[in-house]
Amino acid sequence: MKMSKLFLPTLREVPAEAVVVSHRLLLRAGMIRKLSNGLFTYLPLGLRSFRKVENIIREEMNAIGSLEFKPSVVVPGDIWRESGRWETMGPGMLRIKNRVDQELVVSPTAEEAFTSLLRSEVSSYKQLPLSVYQINTKYRDEIRPRYGLMRAREFTMKDAYSFHTNDESLDETYQDMGRAYRKIFKRCGLSVIPVRADSGAMGGTGSEEFMVESEVGDNNLILCPKCGYAANDEKAACAPDPVAEGPGSAKTDKAYAPIETPNVKTIDELCAFLKTSPKAFIKTLIYRAVNSELDLRSAPGCASLKRVVPENSPAYYPESFFAVCVRGELDVNETKLAATLKASEVELAGESVVERLTGAPVGFAGPVGFATAPVVADLSVMAMHDSVTGALKTDLHFEHVEPGRDFTPWLVADVRTVRAGDHCANCGAEYYAKKGNELGHIFKLGYKYTKSMNMLYLDENGKQQYPTMGCYGIGVDRTLASIIEEHNDENGIVWPMSVAPFHVSIVPIKYEGAMKETADALYSALSSSGVEVLLDDREERPGVKFKDSDLIGVPVRIVVGDKNLPNVEVKLRSAKDAELVPATEAAAKVAAIVRDALARIV
Amino acid sequence: MKMSKLFLPTLREVPAEAVVVSHRLLLRAGMIRKLSNGLFTYLPLGLRSFRKVENIIREEMNAIGSLEFKPSVVVPGDIWRESGRWETMGPGMLRIKNRVDQELVVSPTAEEAFTSLLRSEVSSYKQLPLSVYQINTKYRDEIRPRYGLMRAREFTMKDAYSFHTNDESLDETYQDMGRAYRKIFKRCGLSVIPVRADSGAMGGTGSEEFMVESEVGDNNLILCPKCGYAANDEKAACAPDPVAEGPGSAKTDKAYAPIETPNVKTIDELCAFLKTSPKAFIKTLIYRAVNSELDLRSAPGCASLKRVVPENSPAYYPESFFAVCVRGELDVNETKLAATLKASEVELAGESVVERLTGAPVGFAGPVGFATAPVVADLSVMAMHDSVTGALKTDLHFEHVEPGRDFTPWLVADVRTVRAGDHCANCGAEYYAKKGNELGHIFKLGYKYTKSMNMLYLDENGKQQYPTMGCYGIGVDRTLASIIEEHNDENGIVWPMSVAPFHVSIVPIKYEGAMKETADALYSALSSSGVEVLLDDREERPGVKFKDSDLIGVPVRIVVGDKNLPNVEVKLRSAKDAELVPATEAAAKVAAIVRDALARIV
Repeated sequence: MKMSKLFLPTLREVPAEAVVVSHRLLLRAGMIRKLSNGLFTYLPLGLRSFRKVENIIREEMNAIGSLEFKPSVVVPGDIWRESGRWETMGPGMLRIKNRVDQELVVSPTAEEAFTSLLRSEVSSYKQLPLSVYQINTKYRDEIRPRYGLMRAREFTMKDAYSFHTNDESLDETYQDMGRAYRKIFKRCGLSVIPVRADSGAMGGTGSEEFMVESEVGDNNLILCPKCGYAANDEKAACAPDPVAEGPGSAKTDKAYAPIETPNVKTIDELCAFLKTSPKAFIKTLIYRAVNSELDLRSAPGCASLKRVVPENSPAYYPESFFAVCVRGELDVNETKLAATLKASEVELAGESVVERLTGAPVGFAGPVGFATAPVVADLSVMAMHDSVTGALKTDLHFEHVEPGRDFTPWLVADVRTVRAGDHCANCGAEYYAKKGNELGHIFKLGYKYTKSMNMLYLDENGKQQYPTMGCYGIGVDRTLASIIEEHNDENGIVWPMSVAPFHVSIVPIKYEGAMKETADALYSALSSSGVEVLLDDREERPGVKFKDSDLIGVPVRIVVGDKNLPNVEVKLRSAKDAELVPATEAAAKVAAIVRDALARIV
Repeated sequence: MKMSKLFLPTLREVPAEAVVVSHRLLLRAGMIRKLSNGLFTYLPLGLRSFRKVENIIREEMNAIGSLEFKPSVVVPGDIWRESGRWETMGPGMLRIKNRVDQELVVSPTAEEAFTSLLRSEVSSYKQLPLSVYQINTKYRDEIRPRYGLMRAREFTMKDAYSFHTNDESLDETYQDMGRAYRKIFKRCGLSVIPVRADSGAMGGTGSEEFMVESEVGDNNLILCPKCGYAANDEKAACAPDPVAEGPGSAKTDKAYAPIETPNVKTIDELCAFLKTSPKAFIKTLIYRAVNSELDLRSAPGCASLKRVVPENSPAYYPESFFAVCVRGELDVNETKLAATLKASEVELAGESVVERLTGAPVGFAGPVGFATAPVVADLSVMAMHDSVTGALKTDLHFEHVEPGRDFTPWLVADVRTVRAGDHCANCGAEYYAKKGNELGHIFKLGYKYTKSMNMLYLDENGKQQYPTMGCYGIGVDRTLASIIEEHNDENGIVWPMSVAPFHVSIVPIKYEGAMKETADALYSALSSSGVEVLLDDREERPGVKFKDSDLIGVPVRIVVGDKNLPNVEVKLRSAKDAELVPATEAAAKVAAIVRDALARIV
């Protein structure tokens, strides 16, 4: 393509709104523009790379026999009611009522759409396993869209779903997907960190996230340098670490006793006052849980809670409260807590709720004698001794508390945030941490959707069965942005050949005379051998052309200048130096470079 | 592809919901399924043909230098407020408020999105002309979605927009688009009727619709057999046809006079009663207009109407009423009327409004002495003589009415529906009519969006100017459905090679032994020469395989049977008879058939 025919508004200035490098370079290289908060338009150059990423994903999905469908983007609300997610998806799902009062959803994901479609089509075990996917527009109403394509409201997702008669079959497709994902990211030139919550054995818990390291990542990754354990801190576990010495380490025979703590506000002040350490303090936080699916019918303080019993999905409590205990220096991990409570969301309860439930102002909650809500204790708490905790009265604490002796939690669970420095649950080595963004996720869903949406097939014995199901997603835009995050320098993007918008740029110093002739000849020779060429035919200074070529990151640049003719300069974007090549040999040489680079990463 | 790997749920039964042949065959051939009213999922086979149509459109857009973008599907409402269409788009536009109370729209079209994007990017005449397009999801909230893909709620549209410094430049792109559209439809194997409201000269009114004939078409086409005039009846004009003889044909000197017409309900009864003909009767209908942009400030009965004056777009009346007169045997065309009234919509007024404005029950409206709303008279009325009309009182009419003498309309315009049998406005020949569906539309927009949305560039003299604009749409799904409407027989679809989901199907009578070997060899030989082959490797009876192959309409079929080996049977889907060909030559022969067919229509 000739550059004069391309709409390529490159920017010299760094746009103020863009804080991450991919966002900056996508804007500066004229690849995207913002239409509104979290809504972007791909310009022609950006779309070329976007389509290449999309096609790599498509090829690898097709290679493992997954079949491409195209459901609508807008889908009826009733299928979300069937699955039970109409209630649990929260405000991130964009809901609409149309002119005939039908509830519609702009798809955030498509378990419902595919289950609804395939339950009418699949009737026999002979049709299974079945693996299907789409690459299509999704919308999630992010409260704080930011980082450009990294966290937009509208985005393109490859989402695949598979249906099986048994776990072995599901695991086979799950493993195929895992391999396909590794290949996709490799072909895109990306270093991904596959993250599993379990020890890394094949076929474990059935969930694997594909992360890229990012300073502004949404995810905190916990990594073991020794055994390779890698987990999102939303799921990471660690080896038990009872307090080894000092306050809180030794069992006491003393009965727990109240102690006046006037004007003591913080844990630090309290520890100074009592000459103890945060490790001996049981921190107790009151949490509000949304849509908990736990059975709280006989739990403390829950008798009068509203409980909803839908027809096809589990009963849930729209709102419930819990006292959550963790060792003083640790943090409660809200994602782990939400999973433990089977809730769609958890948040710290407001002051008035805390006062109502604890009978005291904020700061004096504690598990001893607490009966107005279920007490959830982290594993760390149950290993504590001779501990201090709030006494449910203003300016009063208890000391010499022995968990298990002086209180029995309603539930003991792992709800703490694991951090760098904690010890590996698997091998005991010390964890380190990274921030990361999730590009893909493969997940064994099981029967959640097929049961709630009543998808049935007849097995070999003519008996009705629910298929088991997997789901597998990749964010296309986010993958594109991550490639730029990994491949750039101070001058701009450095595309891997596989996803570069053009393979080669030809820059004549001036587009006239012999330089024009040579540039045109190279352009047509390369184009006809299947190489994607951008010819800079603009009337701009050479410096501007070089800067743009570097900024947009075309992998190979051919400079055609009077001074060098009959030679031309061939330079790789990733290399420092150029090479002089006879113009007559340049097309063949460059075509070989492109071909080799493309072959290397397939 | 092997059929056992493809998800291809063909149906023997004709689905009851499907009344048009494309809808029936899309369902029966396992190409689409309905998710909800007007919302469809493409299955793998359907998606293959869909993508081919999409790519033909893409290639022809690229060939005329239009640049592909990808805006978001969900767009902010504020750009629709800027253009003024937030108010005028009506309930067909899907509007949403998101969690932070931002107004959003699921794009029904994208003039606003592109104008908004490009006004920030285009600053100089040097950047113009600029032609851009997308192929993307659209949503229009059809009240009665039907006919499958012909009138769905969600659909894919290719929509292009062009921006120019002058009319000649706009006309050049407009003509390029017209040629590209003809080529696109030709490549898709479609016979389209290009429909213009003007005489057909180049560069006329700047609007051309590309129609396909359809029994259930949305559009009534008016066609001239002599000069080729073709117009949508929403726009068609005809030659003047004053009443030639009999009642209503001769001027009268009598003054108009009231005449009692007790118990006369219909025009026919009235004509019998007065011994006259509908051609002498002035039919007067009270219409309600929505968002009329006419200036009604000094029009009869309009003084107290609410008038809205937005900042960047024309003033309009949310609601106004008109008395519309037309010769008794003719019909008012509501689209022409809406255009005349510059209204987004018109509808017959309710009974209570009619009574309020005419001072009588429904049935006695007339233009004589009517002062409570503006009177709009069709051209036909002004050529009438000695006519009859309602007298604004129960059971009373006027006779001997002379238009122009006894009443003067506020506006005279062409608002009647033109019909087969009317005479060509261009050459006087008699029109015939067809029903059609619009597949594409090219349109010179002018300054509507660039002015209301304040898109400006600097011209050669450094002066700020608004660019003039064109828009150009093609419905992708509707094009696909129309191909099936035109190419089918009693056994199923008969795909043109260019858009067939597969070029060739190989049907072994049994997939075993020598038949399997031959089928596999043909499959791999054809596949490796770039032919798209579907191999029916299922354990089904030959009859089932033949029926499916015909139903899904693959253009060439190779049957491999024991009886014929070492020959195989090659049959075109469109032909009656098969031909025996040595298996060793079949691949080359069939590849040539495919290649020739593809070359013929490019």
